[in-house]
Amino acid sequence: MPTVSEIGERSLIEIFMKHLTPMPDMPIPFWDDASAIDIGNNRAIVVNTDMLVWETDIPKGMTPFQAARKAVVMNISDLAAKGVKPIAFMPSLAIPSDYSVGDAEELLKGFEAGARMYDSYVVGGDTNEAYDVIISGLAMGITESKKIMKRDNGVKPGHKLAVTGDFGLTSAGFKYLLDDTPLPDALNETILNSIYLPEARVNEGIALAETGCVTSCMDSSDGLSVSLYDLMRSSGYGFTLDQIPVHPTAEKFAVYNDLNPNDLALFGGEEYELVFTYSPRNRRKIARALEDVECELITIGTVSESDEIVYAHEGEVVPIKKGGWDHFNA
Amino acid sequence: MPTVSEIGERSLIEIFMKHLTPMPDMPIPFWDDASAIDIGNNRAIVVNTDMLVWETDIPKGMTPFQAARKAVVMNISDLAAKGVKPIAFMPSLAIPSDYSVGDAEELLKGFEAGARMYDSYVVGGDTNEAYDVIISGLAMGITESKKIMKRDNGVKPGHKLAVTGDFGLTSAGFKYLLDDTPLPDALNETILNSIYLPEARVNEGIALAETGCVTSCMDSSDGLSVSLYDLMRSSGYGFTLDQIPVHPTAEKFAVYNDLNPNDLALFGGEEYELVFTYSPRNRRKIARALEDVECELITIGTVSESDEIVYAHEGEVVPIKKGGWDHFNA
Repeated sequence: MPTVSEIGERSLIEIFMKHLTPMPDMPIPFWDDASAIDIGNNRAIVVNTDMLVWETDIPKGMTPFQAARKAVVMNISDLAAKGVKPIAFMPSLAIPSDYSVGDAEELLKGFEAGARMYDSYVVGGDTNEAYDVIISGLAMGITESKKIMKRDNGVKPGHKLAVTGDFGLTSAGFKYLLDDTPLPDALNETILNSIYLPEARVNEGIALAETGCVTSCMDSSDGLSVSLYDLMRSSGYGFTLDQIPVHPTAEKFAVYNDLNPNDLALFGGEEYELVFTYSPRNRRKIARALEDVECELITIGTVSESDEIVYAHEGEVVPIKKGGWDHFNA
Repeated sequence: MPTVSEIGERSLIEIFMKHLTPMPDMPIPFWDDASAIDIGNNRAIVVNTDMLVWETDIPKGMTPFQAARKAVVMNISDLAAKGVKPIAFMPSLAIPSDYSVGDAEELLKGFEAGARMYDSYVVGGDTNEAYDVIISGLAMGITESKKIMKRDNGVKPGHKLAVTGDFGLTSAGFKYLLDDTPLPDALNETILNSIYLPEARVNEGIALAETGCVTSCMDSSDGLSVSLYDLMRSSGYGFTLDQIPVHPTAEKFAVYNDLNPNDLALFGGEEYELVFTYSPRNRRKIARALEDVECELITIGTVSESDEIVYAHEGEVVPIKKGGWDHFNA
């Protein structure tokens, strides 16, 4: 019998699905960022759950406050990607019995800060004992069912692929924190804050959902490349990218360390941008909706008929491999 | 700075609450079994989250299927205690990278079995890596807000205290599993199944809520004694018990091992009965509602003016101490 690391997270989930009876009329199908339940009157409650395990998920230098705040942000990001305003967060927290009350309070302050940042509330939770800090969280919100931006929301070849921000800062940060790649002082704050104090694109997600013109959407928490492959799995359509959205500070970090900036942007993770598609005829509407929440529409490619994800640049077409964050990294 | 084990779970939660902004108009206040959000039209979504950590929470002999099924039952039990029918369950699961795919599938089968047993569905979830199996789950359901049975739902002195079943089986089981207390073969199945295959009182909770006559309710997952103290904290009123509801098989186990059967019933945990109160004038209505779902009304005492919990028996009044399950057991 193989181990989970031998087959990888996505194969494992495929096996899991075989054992589940789907709920009739799910407003969001399996294999999406969040789950939903119909509550009548064409509305749905949208819920997401996600876990942080201190030893495997928390990089050095991150405080309990920051870890807890991040647990909120990563759960809320999945709601944002569906266009849903978060209402409530609930942590299920495990801590060792010799954990200090002061650090435990810092965790609670982090939950509160993360929730209030998006005008939502911590409405309850659960405490447990474990030999490590484990933060499982759930975020929920209510929306009109037809406004939910699913991973396949009607995407067609010819639609445009876009993102809400540039990538690569967290890759740079993890290279510094995990591999001791040098990090120049001038880049330090921008790069480390991307890891320690991430933000979710809540206003952007709600604004995009309001347009009714988004034909697929997900968040980029597993990295840009993996997100593109996830979108392709949901719709069956590939992508041709004509630019890789590299953050200027990640670019500087790449130049300083003689790294490929595109790799930093494509193969990262724990970035909470939205990756989405729209029909080109709605470009102005989408751009204006984002502009209203002070976000630039960054169009990076086109949906293709093929089942490939490629980068077309200076006359060359290069495949973009699938890489980035995979729990059990097979 | 003290550790969490030095102050105990309930003091820790009291400290936690200081850091939280309460959501306006919460249908269920803090310090209850589950949390709720108003969804309009006098309805609320009721949500609970609870975690199982293999090393600290799973006794020997329990299979992955049983552990996962139990994670569902314990989450659904909190909804049952509020009178809410569960609709959906979502696991947030962490497993080690060398965990076998076969065992992982057994976990999934346990989630499915637990959810379907109560006519609810697994609607999504999350997988992670950790060095131990950690199952955080969430269960949710929708109900009319006014039907929610809160821990203080209008309880007054003179009301009757009741439970949906007898206690002590899990105490007996844990004494056998953790302390090697002898377990006679004839009692083995009933006692061990109480731990390996618990059930939630969903039909009973819904039936009680429908009466509109329950003046306080919670589940007994932390043990009968702790539940009584929790109810007292919520309402300010104590209890005088005139009987301790000891399960006949727990009684036999006590006799066999020369243990006090009342202690088994009072100071256990991980039992999923409902503990509730009602005005004596509604006794018949409550009894009939439970009878309709094949459950006996077991009235065990009376709500008192005092802030004490006592057992009045054969002319003696003995205080019932607070004891049972406390994470970080201070």
